[in-house]
Parts: sequence; structure tokens; C-alpha cells
Amino acid sequence: MTNTNTKTTAGTMAMAGGTHPPGGHPPGASIEDGVVLFAHGSRDPLWRAPIEAVEARMRQQAPGAQVRCAYLELAEPDLPTAVRELAGQGVRRLTVVPMFLGTGKHAREDLPLLVQTLREEHPGMEVIVQGAIGEDPRMTALMAEIAAGR
Amino acid sequence: MTNTNTKTTAGTMAMAGGTHPPGGHPPGASIEDGVVLFAHGSRDPLWRAPIEAVEARMRQQAPGAQVRCAYLELAEPDLPTAVRELAGQGVRRLTVVPMFLGTGKHAREDLPLLVQTLREEHPGMEVIVQGAIGEDPRMTALMAEIAAGR
Repeated sequence: MTNTNTKTTAGTMAMAGGTHPPGGHPPGASIEDGVVLFAHGSRDPLWRAPIEAVEARMRQQAPGAQVRCAYLELAEPDLPTAVRELAGQGVRRLTVVPMFLGTGKHAREDLPLLVQTLREEHPGMEVIVQGAIGEDPRMTALMAEIAAGR
Repeated sequence: MTNTNTKTTAGTMAMAGGTHPPGGHPPGASIEDGVVLFAHGSRDPLWRAPIEAVEARMRQQAPGAQVRCAYLELAEPDLPTAVRELAGQGVRRLTVVPMFLGTGKHAREDLPLLVQTLREEHPGMEVIVQGAIGEDPRMTALMAEIAAGR
């Protein structure tokens, strides 16, 4: 077990953000690979729809993919619950995708503490944390396009 | 002045969210057209980098585009300040782009109140509010791709 990012592989990201080269563990590649879409959460259940739509699309593209949504607060399941479920399904390599536009307190402080606890609870599981999804340059390009009304 | 979405034009969205057909007022099309990228805000100044990157890209693609970032809380400028600045630059048609992954309390409750105040302060300005950017189906597709490590 390690609390550093030494297990981060090529194609994934350190917590501090940066560029997002392709890689990681494509979900569905193996029953041992799992992905958690980790979002803030909201009291408003409709807020979750876009996160759940990403989960649905990943399942559609890779039937059998081990994908779960999880939330920091105000919504369920939380991260430990989602990861316990994936561990029960046989997942041994987990990619956590921070569904945040930027890296602020939640991705920089809250998430690493949660991940540390995950690693203690699941010592046999490799846990990889991507950068905040909004930092991917492809997201920048697409958001500029949408904001410009194209 | 109106507080309803009757000024919403084809290609833009009502507050409640839904699909995002192309359209709106492309920034830079006229000095009278402006865009505000309205995000949550964070104490962490690095959190704003992806939002500011979208602003920079829009300026790069349409030099002279009237684009501003604005924040609900924990960062500056706020929405009224950004819109006052745009109004001073001659902007008469404003598109507000909610830089949120989903439509929760902030996009559904806080933003309409802010927009109502904007319309009272700038009666000659047409204010259009897009849906939350994370609800655009192109965002769903791209986020699924990134989360799958592609």
C-alpha cells in the first residue's frame, strides 16, 4: 500500500492535474478493472443526470464495464460504498475520475484523504486517480465551442 | 424587461436544461454580443484555470470577442460586475453560460435570481441563459471517453 501516486501509470494523472494523455485501464477490458465517476453531489436529484449519463454511455460502449458514480456529499453512494461494491465484483484495478471542472479543495484535499482510506481498506487494489475532468484540453476546446453557441 | 425566458432564441436554452442545439450569439459576431462563463468559484485560485482556459480559447478563436468569467462565490468578479463591464463595452446581447456539470440549486435557483437582477439593472440588454454546460450531449460523450482512459 502506498499513499503517494507511485502507482500512477502512464496515461493517467497525478492528483495535481496537468495534461491528460490517453491510457489508463479501459473499463470492460477485464472484470478486474473498474471506474468510479466521483462527483460533488447535490440535494437536487436532477443534478446527477449528466454524471449518470456518462456512466450509461460507458456501459453502452463497453457492456459489462464496472463503472459506478459516487459523490462527495449530498448524494449517494459515497466513494467508500461504491468501491466496496466494485471490490465485491472482483475489481482489483480502480480508476477514480474526479468529475470536477477544476482542481480546488474537493479534488486537491478531500479526494486524496478519501483515496488514502480506500487504499487502507483495500490493500490489494490498485487505485489510480485521474486529474479533474475539466482540465483535459479536449474539454476546454468543447466548452469553448458550446459557449460560443456552435 | 422580462423575467421569463421569452427572449430565448432558437439555438439557446431555457433555464430548466434539456438539449443544446447549436446557435446563440457567436462571440465576436458583433461588439454588441457578449458571453459570460458563469462558474461556481473556489478559494483555490488554481481551480479557475480551466474556466479561464475556455475564455482564452474563445478569444483566440474570435479576436475581440466580449467574453468574461464570473463566479457565484469564493472568487471574483461576480456576475453583476462582469456584466457591468460588458455593458460598458457596448454589449447589448448577453449569453450566460452556466459552467456547471449539472443543474442543481446554483443553476436552477441562484442563477435565475441573479439574471432577474441583471435584467432590472440593464433593461436594454437581451439576456440569454444557456443550460448547464455538462448537460450537452457532446460533453457526455467526451467525458465518457476521458473516463474510459481513451
